Amino acid sequence: MAKKIPEETILRLSHYLRALLYFLEEKKDVVSSRAIAEFLKISPHQLRKDLSYFGHFGKKGVGYSCAQLLEAIKEILGLNRNWYAAVVGFGNLGRALSFYKGFRDQGIFIKVAFDVDEKKTNRMYKGIGIYPLEKMEEVLKREKVQIGIVTVPKEVAEDIASRLSGCGIRAILNFAPLKLNFSHTIIAKDVDLSCQLSYLTYHLKTAHRDSPKQSSK
Amino acid sequence: MAKKIPEETILRLSHYLRALLYFLEEKKDVVSSRAIAEFLKISPHQLRKDLSYFGHFGKKGVGYSCAQLLEAIKEILGLNRNWYAAVVGFGNLGRALSFYKGFRDQGIFIKVAFDVDEKKTNRMYKGIGIYPLEKMEEVLKREKVQIGIVTVPKEVAEDIASRLSGCGIRAILNFAPLKLNFSHTIIAKDVDLSCQLSYLTYHLKTAHRDSPKQSSK
Repeated sequence: MAKKIPEETILRLSHYLRALLYFLEEKKDVVSSRAIAEFLKISPHQLRKDLSYFGHFGKKGVGYSCAQLLEAIKEILGLNRNWYAAVVGFGNLGRALSFYKGFRDQGIFIKVAFDVDEKKTNRMYKGIGIYPLEKMEEVLKREKVQIGIVTVPKEVAEDIASRLSGCGIRAILNFAPLKLNFSHTIIAKDVDLSCQLSYLTYHLKTAHRDSPKQSSK
Repeated sequence: MAKKIPEETILRLSHYLRALLYFLEEKKDVVSSRAIAEFLKISPHQLRKDLSYFGHFGKKGVGYSCAQLLEAIKEILGLNRNWYAAVVGFGNLGRALSFYKGFRDQGIFIKVAFDVDEKKTNRMYKGIGIYPLEKMEEVLKREKVQIGIVTVPKEVAEDIASRLSGCGIRAILNFAPLKLNFSHTIIAKDVDLSCQLSYLTYHLKTAHRDSPKQSSK
């Protein structure tokens, strides 16, 4: 049985990845936990604790081999292969996510998108096939896609998620402002943009009382 | 001196807001902590603990007045007033965020946007003034804006953030994939979309070993 690994640890692993890419670009072969931690503004203890869930990395008093740690984290996160995703809802946000460079840099490619608006569908758009929503099942039967990215209105998000699940999709990134209700066969991550903004308004409002916070998710 | 309130608590407050809006739409005047918790798939204990940071709400054995708790949370989050934001980087993501309904629903309005691409600037677009980046200081001097939303490439994000800070902006929502380095006068929230996706690939990869997780941020 695997150890229970905190969600925050998994999210931080991709920050470590980003730091290691930076140090490699800077032609550093070996890097200390202190340097990575400083780059990311966290404590070296946090970094070492997070990595300890997955094994022993680096050499005491020397540091980590950038290339080796990078490969190890990529493997842990499943990023040593390509993944394919479908975007449901090809509005402003759907389009932005479809062409988001950060996804492609990690080997995650948007293959198809679905929308109810007939003006947008039944065509290729910058390499992505855009289809009518009603053809989702048919298209996903022939396209190999593992991840669904949901940017539809909240009223239909639950239905879309369950249809995606019916198509064999096992992971969903949900931008609709609700918590999806799922069986345990699906992995879901809700991204609530409004919630991030109200974190700011909370601190703006209380800034004259508390000291402001800096945070990363 | 105010109590130190966990970041997660503040982020969950906007989920409570969303639940209360739902119950009000359903014509419920009073709601139990159990009902809110079930709606959001969290524990009633979590809800009560989060609220306890801010005072005493609801009546034991009766529940919360939806309207009262809604107003109280809006006030805590600073959402009982309007806020104005500037988007820096009017690419796909910048445009999507500029017209994101969820922000307007919370009383957060994008007033101006900035971009380096001359084809996009010096015009109004659906009510938002789009300006050249070099005019940022000039425009922000006359426009009342409290929040900056940064969607520029990571190479220039730090510079943009410091220019925003120089314009008196005290809160930044950062979509560039780096942790911004700030003085303590600025409140920053980094939203790392790639990191959310690799949370899914991690679980997809390990799904045959661990049981999947459902999570909300």
